[in-house]
Amino acid sequence: MHTDLVAALDIGGTKIAGGLVDGHGRILLCAQRPTPAQEDGDTVMGAVEDVMAELESSPLWERTGAVGIGSAGPVDASAGTVSPVNVPGWRDYPLVGRVRAVTGGLPVELIGDGVAITAAEHWQGAARGHDNALCMVVSTGVGGGLVLGGRLHPGPTGNAGHIGHISVDLDGDSCPCGARGCVERLASGPNIARRALEGGWLPGPDGDTSAAAVAAAARAGDPVAVASFARAAQALAAGIAATATLVEIDIAVIGGGVGKAGEVLLAPLRKALADYATLSFVRNLEVAPAQMGTDAGLVGAAAAALGQRTGTLAAGV
Amino acid sequence: MHTDLVAALDIGGTKIAGGLVDGHGRILLCAQRPTPAQEDGDTVMGAVEDVMAELESSPLWERTGAVGIGSAGPVDASAGTVSPVNVPGWRDYPLVGRVRAVTGGLPVELIGDGVAITAAEHWQGAARGHDNALCMVVSTGVGGGLVLGGRLHPGPTGNAGHIGHISVDLDGDSCPCGARGCVERLASGPNIARRALEGGWLPGPDGDTSAAAVAAAARAGDPVAVASFARAAQALAAGIAATATLVEIDIAVIGGGVGKAGEVLLAPLRKALADYATLSFVRNLEVAPAQMGTDAGLVGAAAAALGQRTGTLAAGV
Repeated sequence: MHTDLVAALDIGGTKIAGGLVDGHGRILLCAQRPTPAQEDGDTVMGAVEDVMAELESSPLWERTGAVGIGSAGPVDASAGTVSPVNVPGWRDYPLVGRVRAVTGGLPVELIGDGVAITAAEHWQGAARGHDNALCMVVSTGVGGGLVLGGRLHPGPTGNAGHIGHISVDLDGDSCPCGARGCVERLASGPNIARRALEGGWLPGPDGDTSAAAVAAAARAGDPVAVASFARAAQALAAGIAATATLVEIDIAVIGGGVGKAGEVLLAPLRKALADYATLSFVRNLEVAPAQMGTDAGLVGAAAAALGQRTGTLAAGV
Repeated sequence: MHTDLVAALDIGGTKIAGGLVDGHGRILLCAQRPTPAQEDGDTVMGAVEDVMAELESSPLWERTGAVGIGSAGPVDASAGTVSPVNVPGWRDYPLVGRVRAVTGGLPVELIGDGVAITAAEHWQGAARGHDNALCMVVSTGVGGGLVLGGRLHPGPTGNAGHIGHISVDLDGDSCPCGARGCVERLASGPNIARRALEGGWLPGPDGDTSAAAVAAAARAGDPVAVASFARAAQALAAGIAATATLVEIDIAVIGGGVGKAGEVLLAPLRKALADYATLSFVRNLEVAPAQMGTDAGLVGAAAAALGQRTGTLAAGV
């Protein structure tokens, strides 16, 4: 029987989602379970198996020829293992082998979640038609992925595009990763909120101190809130400019919760990019908001599985 | 007749070198002229034509099937033009077309000089056998290039790997490129010397204030000289770690005049890398000195021309 579908898994610290996806990126069936993130590794795997069982019980399953997994990182695609920071029960966990076993031996492709989002934006979203792109998620953390020469660039271990943990301030504040002055340390949602509070910004009567609340204050003209977003934009600009200068990209796509702040973030980001992206071959870099919604992880994992089969969408190297 | 050779051109602000190179990277014939860098564009092109005429007058010329050019940047490989910073007479100069014309129509491949050095180190030098590598030249400036997935990654315009102009200190000193805190602004030879002098380092009786003299002082234990190299090493480490975090590399090769300082630079560089390359997939990054000598530019340009023909060594995408 012709297998025209792939199974996709999107594994995060909050939920485990699965889907059967066709060659146009349409999710024909989906299933979801909460991630038992604080439980032991077998319990977490049990949730993955529950999701897979839902997919396998469908008549569509016999049309399914491969599995793509996008997982919270770090991952090791070459070893087939994952060690998601927020799932302590999984350290070097052999996820690829376990998933292959429950499917009866289908080929399984593993990539990091930032790479998955990138695959989705390149296939169906804001990076479509761009041969060289950086796609970012700016949220609780800052992640990303790269398209180079028309192909997804996961790197040998599936982690490439980790823009949140490049240092743009080598003498700056310590980052939980161990380095200093990382993009995430300056530009993530919690850090935008922290900086606003430290600068004297007062939340509204609902006590909401999220980055979204800071964005609302910035939109209303609060100078401390504006300054906190401007600093985040500066760090993102330095990181995006570094990426463009290193590998040549022509578009940076910004998604995630902080990305949803819109022009409060994007206007100072475009301005700061002019300060850091100075060489001739990076000056025309475009910045665009992400277009894919909450399905991006599943669609991207499917793209990786399809690309592995066709050689067109994703290709390790 | 079987064409088993390529012509290579290495175009810099000081000299224009040419060679006929075989499939093993051996330079069978070479020619050289000083670059009339302050003359008009036609005069500079005249020097290139003189070099090409030397090559074409050889009996080996009829075995030559393609031309590779490595040029001081920025270059624009897609347009076939070059705009070397130190050759003001060439701005968007159509070098590829002019060289093709003097060869009677051979295919011509253009890359930046940092990319050329990288092609040479990957083919014959310290990056041989590494599928993912950053090669750098630390000298008057700081340049570089990338090998990704076993192939040279010049990027669409041939400028990728410009590590000297990524910002690792977003509030730092202004760089001539227009940005702030670039790796080059902290780690180039002139900046190592400037920082040592500003810190109170006194040159010897010969009055030599070069980075090489600072390196000699550091080797002799001068604390200001040691500190200036340590700061350069820190900036290089932040840039190398950023590159590894973005695209996954397993080796960084350091060449150029400052690279020749050896352990005075490499020891603090390895130490600083542990501070900035913190994520699991970048922790085993190797640092090695360059192995190619002054012929690297020619050998790398030849590699680009050969790779264009065979698809194995260099490939735009």
